[in-house]
Amino acid sequence: MSVKIQDIRVICTAPEGINLVVVRVETNQPGLYGLGCATFAYRHLAVKHLIEEYLKPLLLGRDAENIEELWQLMHQNGYWRNGPIENNAISGIDMALWDIKGKLADMPLYQLFGGRMREGIPVYRHVDGRDIEEICDNIHRFQEMGITHLRCQCGGYGGTPYGQTPKTAPVGAHDGMYLDSRKYVRDTVKLFGEIRDRIGYDMELVHDVHERIAPVEAIKLAKELEPFDLFFLEDPVPLEQTNWLKNMREQTSIPIAQGELFNNPREWKQLIAEQLIDFIRVHISQIGGITPARKLQIFAEQFGVRTAWHGPGDMSPLAHAANIHIDLAAPNFGVQEWSGIEPPNFVIQDLKGPHGALLDVFPGLPQFYEGYVYANDKPGLGVDVDEKEAAKYPCEKTVTTWTQTRLRDGSLQTP
Amino acid sequence: MSVKIQDIRVICTAPEGINLVVVRVETNQPGLYGLGCATFAYRHLAVKHLIEEYLKPLLLGRDAENIEELWQLMHQNGYWRNGPIENNAISGIDMALWDIKGKLADMPLYQLFGGRMREGIPVYRHVDGRDIEEICDNIHRFQEMGITHLRCQCGGYGGTPYGQTPKTAPVGAHDGMYLDSRKYVRDTVKLFGEIRDRIGYDMELVHDVHERIAPVEAIKLAKELEPFDLFFLEDPVPLEQTNWLKNMREQTSIPIAQGELFNNPREWKQLIAEQLIDFIRVHISQIGGITPARKLQIFAEQFGVRTAWHGPGDMSPLAHAANIHIDLAAPNFGVQEWSGIEPPNFVIQDLKGPHGALLDVFPGLPQFYEGYVYANDKPGLGVDVDEKEAAKYPCEKTVTTWTQTRLRDGSLQTP
Amino acid sequence: MSVKIQDIRVICTAPEGINLVVVRVETNQPGLYGLGCATFAYRHLAVKHLIEEYLKPLLLGRDAENIEELWQLMHQNGYWRNGPIENNAISGIDMALWDIKGKLADMPLYQLFGGRMREGIPVYRHVDGRDIEEICDNIHRFQEMGITHLRCQCGGYGGTPYGQTPKTAPVGAHDGMYLDSRKYVRDTVKLFGEIRDRIGYDMELVHDVHERIAPVEAIKLAKELEPFDLFFLEDPVPLEQTNWLKNMREQTSIPIAQGELFNNPREWKQLIAEQLIDFIRVHISQIGGITPARKLQIFAEQFGVRTAWHGPGDMSPLAHAANIHIDLAAPNFGVQEWSGIEPPNFVIQDLKGPHGALLDVFPGLPQFYEGYVYANDKPGLGVDVDEKEAAKYPCEKTVTTWTQTRLRDGSLQTP
Amino acid sequence: MSVKIQDIRVICTAPEGINLVVVRVETNQPGLYGLGCATFAYRHLAVKHLIEEYLKPLLLGRDAENIEELWQLMHQNGYWRNGPIENNAISGIDMALWDIKGKLADMPLYQLFGGRMREGIPVYRHVDGRDIEEICDNIHRFQEMGITHLRCQCGGYGGTPYGQTPKTAPVGAHDGMYLDSRKYVRDTVKLFGEIRDRIGYDMELVHDVHERIAPVEAIKLAKELEPFDLFFLEDPVPLEQTNWLKNMREQTSIPIAQGELFNNPREWKQLIAEQLIDFIRVHISQIGGITPARKLQIFAEQFGVRTAWHGPGDMSPLAHAANIHIDLAAPNFGVQEWSGIEPPNFVIQDLKGPHGALLDVFPGLPQFYEGYVYANDKPGLGVDVDEKEAAKYPCEKTVTTWTQTRLRDGSLQTP
Repeated sequence: MSVKIQDIRVICTAPEGINLVVVRVETNQPGLYGLGCATFAYRHLAVKHLIEEYLKPLLLGRDAENIEELWQLMHQNGYWRNGPIENNAISGIDMALWDIKGKLADMPLYQLFGGRMREGIPVYRHVDGRDIEEICDNIHRFQEMGITHLRCQCGGYGGTPYGQTPKTAPVGAHDGMYLDSRKYVRDTVKLFGEIRDRIGYDMELVHDVHERIAPVEAIKLAKELEPFDLFFLEDPVPLEQTNWLKNMREQTSIPIAQGELFNNPREWKQLIAEQLIDFIRVHISQIGGITPARKLQIFAEQFGVRTAWHGPGDMSPLAHAANIHIDLAAPNFGVQEWSGIEPPNFVIQDLKGPHGALLDVFPGLPQFYEGYVYANDKPGLGVDVDEKEAAKYPCEKTVTTWTQTRLRDGSLQTP
Repeated sequence: MSVKIQDIRVICTAPEGINLVVVRVETNQPGLYGLGCATFAYRHLAVKHLIEEYLKPLLLGRDAENIEELWQLMHQNGYWRNGPIENNAISGIDMALWDIKGKLADMPLYQLFGGRMREGIPVYRHVDGRDIEEICDNIHRFQEMGITHLRCQCGGYGGTPYGQTPKTAPVGAHDGMYLDSRKYVRDTVKLFGEIRDRIGYDMELVHDVHERIAPVEAIKLAKELEPFDLFFLEDPVPLEQTNWLKNMREQTSIPIAQGELFNNPREWKQLIAEQLIDFIRVHISQIGGITPARKLQIFAEQFGVRTAWHGPGDMSPLAHAANIHIDLAAPNFGVQEWSGIEPPNFVIQDLKGPHGALLDVFPGLPQFYEGYVYANDKPGLGVDVDEKEAAKYPCEKTVTTWTQTRLRDGSLQTP
Repeated sequence: MSVKIQDIRVICTAPEGINLVVVRVETNQPGLYGLGCATFAYRHLAVKHLIEEYLKPLLLGRDAENIEELWQLMHQNGYWRNGPIENNAISGIDMALWDIKGKLADMPLYQLFGGRMREGIPVYRHVDGRDIEEICDNIHRFQEMGITHLRCQCGGYGGTPYGQTPKTAPVGAHDGMYLDSRKYVRDTVKLFGEIRDRIGYDMELVHDVHERIAPVEAIKLAKELEPFDLFFLEDPVPLEQTNWLKNMREQTSIPIAQGELFNNPREWKQLIAEQLIDFIRVHISQIGGITPARKLQIFAEQFGVRTAWHGPGDMSPLAHAANIHIDLAAPNFGVQEWSGIEPPNFVIQDLKGPHGALLDVFPGLPQFYEGYVYANDKPGLGVDVDEKEAAKYPCEKTVTTWTQTRLRDGSLQTP
Repeated sequence: MSVKIQDIRVICTAPEGINLVVVRVETNQPGLYGLGCATFAYRHLAVKHLIEEYLKPLLLGRDAENIEELWQLMHQNGYWRNGPIENNAISGIDMALWDIKGKLADMPLYQLFGGRMREGIPVYRHVDGRDIEEICDNIHRFQEMGITHLRCQCGGYGGTPYGQTPKTAPVGAHDGMYLDSRKYVRDTVKLFGEIRDRIGYDMELVHDVHERIAPVEAIKLAKELEPFDLFFLEDPVPLEQTNWLKNMREQTSIPIAQGELFNNPREWKQLIAEQLIDFIRVHISQIGGITPARKLQIFAEQFGVRTAWHGPGDMSPLAHAANIHIDLAAPNFGVQEWSGIEPPNFVIQDLKGPHGALLDVFPGLPQFYEGYVYANDKPGLGVDVDEKEAAKYPCEKTVTTWTQTRLRDGSLQTP
């Protein structure tokens, strides 16, 4: 008897203060449902409405097992395609369908993807601090936890304190987060020199440019960071300027990771086929879920490009689990970003697993232990949602401000 | 005194049965407001929510005159960028801000863009029919109206009747709109041969592939249509396969128009800079409004690429007016698509101007006369919304089905 | 409890006179085993020995669920990699592991690959004949069976009768299969003109160059066949000369299918990434089984290249089933070659399904009906082996001769 | 009622000893006129004659609001197009028409261009000196004024004193300005090392090669300046040798600014589309005024190339104002060159605003304050001409000599 989609519901919850969007797909089989992540934290209501008002009526009564067919149907239904709202909505349903598939097969998802290539997933964590002392203290705490890869920043993305309008701005300049990109380049090179001097070369280091400087500046940074042997330089150029990676490749051997903001294949196709990046790090719900992410992983494998999926705090444990299941089966897995709380509220025990509220709402989150993350052996994604707990943490509709920086002259940074 | 944004409202209306989304931006100046088009007909509620819940709180109290700053602010605010829902929402506000700018200057918008390069805008209309007889009858009616450019199709996009599952499909195949792309290519070549035989070469002819066939088939079609001297071949390849236009260029001299589904600059940048297309025909609300459309027009001008903006029925008269204002000032204007009702309800008088209900709701729509469309001389876009009339035609939430075809084997067509 | 590999056995059988090689992987779970195809008909003993003497000891006791890990292990174990003997041996085990995976999930394999994109698989058959009359007679018989795609040849691959040494050969020339490539090009163009004159354009036609002529001749053939609207031209250039496809692309819009002889990714990577072919048609056991074939299908999908897997008589029903399972789930499936008996022993009823002996040995072969092939709903590949029946048809060790042609001057053709 | 061009007059004035050319376009509206800059200081009479004898009769009676139409009319009128005389003449009228447009809209021009992206415009000034001491003294004076970007040279463009014929020249060598390009490269690298040692890295530094050395020398210079973190290297290669920038890009990450001598789009199109420069710095009257400059700014924005318009002493305050209005609205504005008097007559108070005579003749010049320049809020360009004052400073017809250097062997330098 075929498995039909009987209902689709959207659950919004914010156990850690970040708006998370979860999709629950119900089937006509008693007790059989799937869960997926549709979190676009800064547009959560738009995603919710799109699912409830358009995708749900499109899918009700259809065969839940034909995931590829349903993905294509959703992708093309609105005529105009792609975009973060559409893709997250599709992702929520796509992941839930794979969760159902795994439950039908009574297998954790990595088994459907060809089985385990490794037992646990090495992760990298984010280290920040006000100065080199604080950063190195934090590095040591992570080392004690068995962490093998660390991303180091000083003073927020772009290297400047948040929320301060500099005195050198013109009269009447807007308040906001200002970035002095040229000072940031100099400071970052100095930072990594000091870190290497203090901790040596045994720890793998990553730095995240966060797409916030001009490409020609990023190339300078890449060249000057080369002696400090980074594991990779993360998102060195803006989404719109990835053709600059060709020039970066010509001038440096620094490994390049790019793609947190990618949305559709046009953005990564050439970079992979021409081997202009070393690590592809899309946010898998932002590209439409497990179906396109598995294809991307396999495509990247053809060219020796490894995966380093985006794994920040603004995605649900379901999406973290999706990352891990793909990672476990991928020959070309590189490393996994794993989010946690950041300094100054740094408490080691919190970092060994998800925080209390998150765990209450999402039982089953993959476990961290001694530098690696392990999936559980439940079928599908292996993560559930406790809706009663979820209801305790309602989402708030707030307009985010962290997404944009201003240049020294007060103008908005544009890519 | 600076002009501040005081309120933003979304008006949904469907005077002709198509869901239209209009944005009204109110200012702190008595009686000063702007109107813009945010119509994504197949996702109208998602656009409405995005504007009301995210963009409105982001913009309230800001200076309405700094359009570029506000566009960048909206574009980057959600961190992940682009996509049809986001872009239409931004477009609604962007057009309204330009409408306000024009009202402040007491000028029709084309004046702000450098003044008129021409007095009226030549348009092309869509001709369809069940057979060559009906098509030629309809061509003659348009000729009598002074129309100089016509788009000819036989039997729906793709050339096949809608809604029929062919007998040659496999057992259990889904119902749907089926396309036999290879038969369509042969039939279309035959159709244009017959049209030219009957009406000669004085009428400019266009054909719309509607991105529905494989690129290698589109190249064959282009080559075989060459003797029939098309004004252009419209959207010959899917959004995802535009690199094929290089090969099409190498094999034919048929003028190429592409871009109805384009969403962001990455999709058109190379095509224009390498002069792989002759006409750029984006849907301007789908790329984010007047601000990016003007930039695109100017960019295209640098490479001799002309404009042929998308002008279908599923956009509001505000967007049609925006097209016309840009057209009037553009040195590199090519031709303008102008929508009307289609056979079999073909009545000539209806085609001379907008239909009754649409005109009631949107007073000020540019006027058609003897093959050309003329903007009015009111400041800004020159089109208003009568909200009482708009309320008579509420939108319906329906899942569209026309956007997708199935191949002969019953599978969904994928690009 | 993990599923361990407990035994690996090779079964050789020739129910239709062609040597087939089947691998059976036994597990530690009662009754749980998998079957795969390792058929390299012209080197069957080498494959058998490789499996029994090298791969079996490598794999015994390992976890049968970690298919990717085991594939990589086999692929790299001999240090020197690739080649048809190695790949077929690996394929036999790889398919068997996927068969086990499907049985563990209690799902037909297409379900693990994302579910059905279509209900049945359109196939093409091979039509030959001594002259145009016989060919058209055979075409009509296939049409009556519902076949929609046909491959037409006249007089054997290369267009010349087998086994005749021409009078124009030099004194003392070797006996053998001679090919006059220039005459073949002229004859083939003439053949398709005549076929189209007689049967019109509703039947999709394919022609197989079989890599037997010079590339520059193949380009001439492609251009001259263009008016006859082929579905594709099959293997127009030799394995070693695929860079010629770039030039073929620049000159024609004929769809190109290539890859029957491909053995490893280097051979197809650039062709796909640069979209120089329209259909990829590898022989999936020749590239190492389902694991690499699924990756290749997904890779090809990224570039709009469709699949047309090789499906000849010299592979077992297990491999045909593997083709069909991948086909069912692939968005970029094109068409499937489906083998049958050829004229002059043409009997229609035999073509509606596999022949008696083959069916006795391999119960479960996908069923042909009215132009389409349908997978059964058994878990895994859905095809079994009756070893008692298999033993009735022992393989013979013969040196094949059909694989090589001689040129008009008596020399061996070289690519 | 349409606005007609009623008169066009040319005003030549030299309040600072430099010949400035201003165009005044009168309309049929009482009191409505526009002003533009047509300054080609070294050919001022040719420009004046061209306007009075050719462009004025072409334009009288035409509609002043159709700027784009009139620009195209002027541009193509002489059949042979482009060149500095033509472009400056066109610029004078084009700017005046935009000035009229702004006055009609009652808006400063930046409002027509989409409003302000920033409140003030950061500028760079020119620092020279006989030695490192003098240069650093001058740097400190600029720092005290709030200047954030400085262009540093030692001893005139090319790095050598003006007017001295070196002893190493051959017998009978011409007098003139000699340049030893190889010594200049070494000296300049040394100079920036010393400047950085003394003032650190907080000041943004620019260096102007002024197109005076061989491209291969410029590449060496660029590479050796890389450690000193220049904001950009200005005009490193001659107009005729810009294809060398591709090679420069491959070898360094130094930001490149080019274009002071550019005259028409062919000179910048490829450099921008291939992102071979970081800053485009044309002299906007030399390319034909605001109309082409706005298009160029928007074109450059598509590729992430920023603007750094030429802003020397040999252009009128009207042109400076045009720069500033474009700068205020441009997302891709970089920095603005801002001229002033140079050492050795360095007087700080003079640098805080324009000099006396210039200000008397051109009331309304944008104001400098603490490192930024601010436009006034008058409609149009916001700068007027006091013709009585202008008449006090008549132009002199002199043949300039500073434009050319000689090589060490006494021959003229050629590009």
